[in-house]
Amino acid sequence: MSRPAFVLVRPQMGENIGAAARAMLNFGLDRMRVVGPRDGWPNERAVALASGAGRVLDAAMVTETTAEAVADAQWVLATTARDRDLTKPIYTPEAAMTEARDRIAAGQRVAVLFGPERAGLENDDIATANAIVSVPTNPDFASLNLAQCVLLTGYEWRRVTTGAAGAETRMAGTDWANAAEIAALGDHFEERLGQAGFFFPEAKAPAMKRHLRNLWSRMPLTRADVQTFHGMMRQMVRWKERG
Amino acid sequence: MSRPAFVLVRPQMGENIGAAARAMLNFGLDRMRVVGPRDGWPNERAVALASGAGRVLDAAMVTETTAEAVADAQWVLATTARDRDLTKPIYTPEAAMTEARDRIAAGQRVAVLFGPERAGLENDDIATANAIVSVPTNPDFASLNLAQCVLLTGYEWRRVTTGAAGAETRMAGTDWANAAEIAALGDHFEERLGQAGFFFPEAKAPAMKRHLRNLWSRMPLTRADVQTFHGMMRQMVRWKERG
Repeated sequence: MSRPAFVLVRPQMGENIGAAARAMLNFGLDRMRVVGPRDGWPNERAVALASGAGRVLDAAMVTETTAEAVADAQWVLATTARDRDLTKPIYTPEAAMTEARDRIAAGQRVAVLFGPERAGLENDDIATANAIVSVPTNPDFASLNLAQCVLLTGYEWRRVTTGAAGAETRMAGTDWANAAEIAALGDHFEERLGQAGFFFPEAKAPAMKRHLRNLWSRMPLTRADVQTFHGMMRQMVRWKERG
Repeated sequence: MSRPAFVLVRPQMGENIGAAARAMLNFGLDRMRVVGPRDGWPNERAVALASGAGRVLDAAMVTETTAEAVADAQWVLATTARDRDLTKPIYTPEAAMTEARDRIAAGQRVAVLFGPERAGLENDDIATANAIVSVPTNPDFASLNLAQCVLLTGYEWRRVTTGAAGAETRMAGTDWANAAEIAALGDHFEERLGQAGFFFPEAKAPAMKRHLRNLWSRMPLTRADVQTFHGMMRQMVRWKERG
C-alpha cells in the first residue's frame, strides 16, 4: 500500500527534523518532504538525530514553497494545534488517517502538512489544504511539538492501516484534481476577478484572495469540475471582450 | 472520571521526566509516580523541562520499589517495546486504554509502568503487571523513547475516553446552504453563462446545464460560499458592462 507524504513546512531545528524522521519510520512512513528548511539542506543536526532513520532524510524532497511540495496530492491535510476560524472540515488524527487510507486505497495521493516549531502553519499554507487535522489535547495544556505531532499522526496511520477493518474504496474511478490543478484554478480566477475589480477595497484583497483559495481547496473537485470552472471563466472573459 | 497513574520506573534523565509530565498533561493526565529516580527527587532538569506541567511533578508520588508504586492498583500494565516471552496478555495502547477506562468506570484503580530510557522494564517489574502494552511500531525500526511512549499511551487514554465524537468531522459554526440557495445559485450562473454563450452547441446545452446543476449540488457549500460565487459572477457581469 502506498503511504502519505509528511511535509515539514519551514522547520527550524535540525534536531526536530531528525526526530520527525525517526517518528515517521517508527510507523513505517518514509515519504518526507521539506519546505524551505531554515538552515538549508542537508542538515547535519537532522542527520545526527535521525540515527537509523537517515534514509528518510536522504530520500526527502526539498522544495521552496508549500504549493510545490503538495502539487501531486489530491488530498492535503494541515495539522494545527488551535482551532482556526476557517470553514474547513476538522478531523481528529484517527478520522484523518482513516480517510487517508481509503483515499490512498482508491489511488489518490495524500500529503500532511506540519508547521514550524514555534509559529505553526501560516494561513497561506492552510489555504492549500483540503482539511485540518487537530490532535484533541487537553484544552488547558496543549504543548505538542513538531516531532510529537508527527509521531501521533504516524501512529494513527499505522493503527488504522494494520487494523482489522478493511479499506473501503469510495468513488473509485473518479479522477480527483490534484493540488497543482486546484492552485492553477485559483490562479486563473484570481487573475480574472482581479481584472474585473472583484478584490475591493484594496485593503481587504489579501483576505478575500485567501478566502477564495480556501474555498477551492475545500471543494471535492474532480478534474472535470476544474475544467468546467475554467471554461465558465474563459467564457465570461470572451463575453466581456466581445463588448 | 478517575484517571490511570503513570509510573516512571527508574528514570534516568531529568529531561525525559519533564517531557513525560508534559505529555501526560497534554492529554489531561496528572497522576505521576516515580520509582527510584536515578538523580534523586526533586529533579531540577525535570522541573525546567516540564514548563507548564510542573504541577504534575509537584504532585508525583515517589517510591523506592515498583511494588510500592502500584500497591493500590487493581490493574497494572507494563509498557514494553519488544515482545517478551511471557505468558501475559499483550494489548495495543488502544485496547489497553479501553479496558482501563472500563475498569476505572467500574471503580478500579489502574497503573501503567514505563521503563527506564535505555534498558526498559526488568522482568521483576513486569512480574507486578497484569498485562503488557506494546505500541505496534515498524518491526524494522522501533525507537520510541520514554516520553514518546507516555505520549502515545496518554493520547489513547484521551481518545477512548472522549468517545465517538473524535471520529466526526466538524466544521465550526458552519451555516450550510440549503437546496433553495443552491438552486438560486444554479439559476444565476445558468442565466449569465447563457447570455455569455457558454452553452454551445445548442444540442449539448441541456446536458451541460445538468452537469452544472450536479456540480453545484455536489459541493459542500456554505451560505458564505454561495454569496462568494454570486459575487464573482456579478462582478464579471459589471466588468463586461463597463465594456
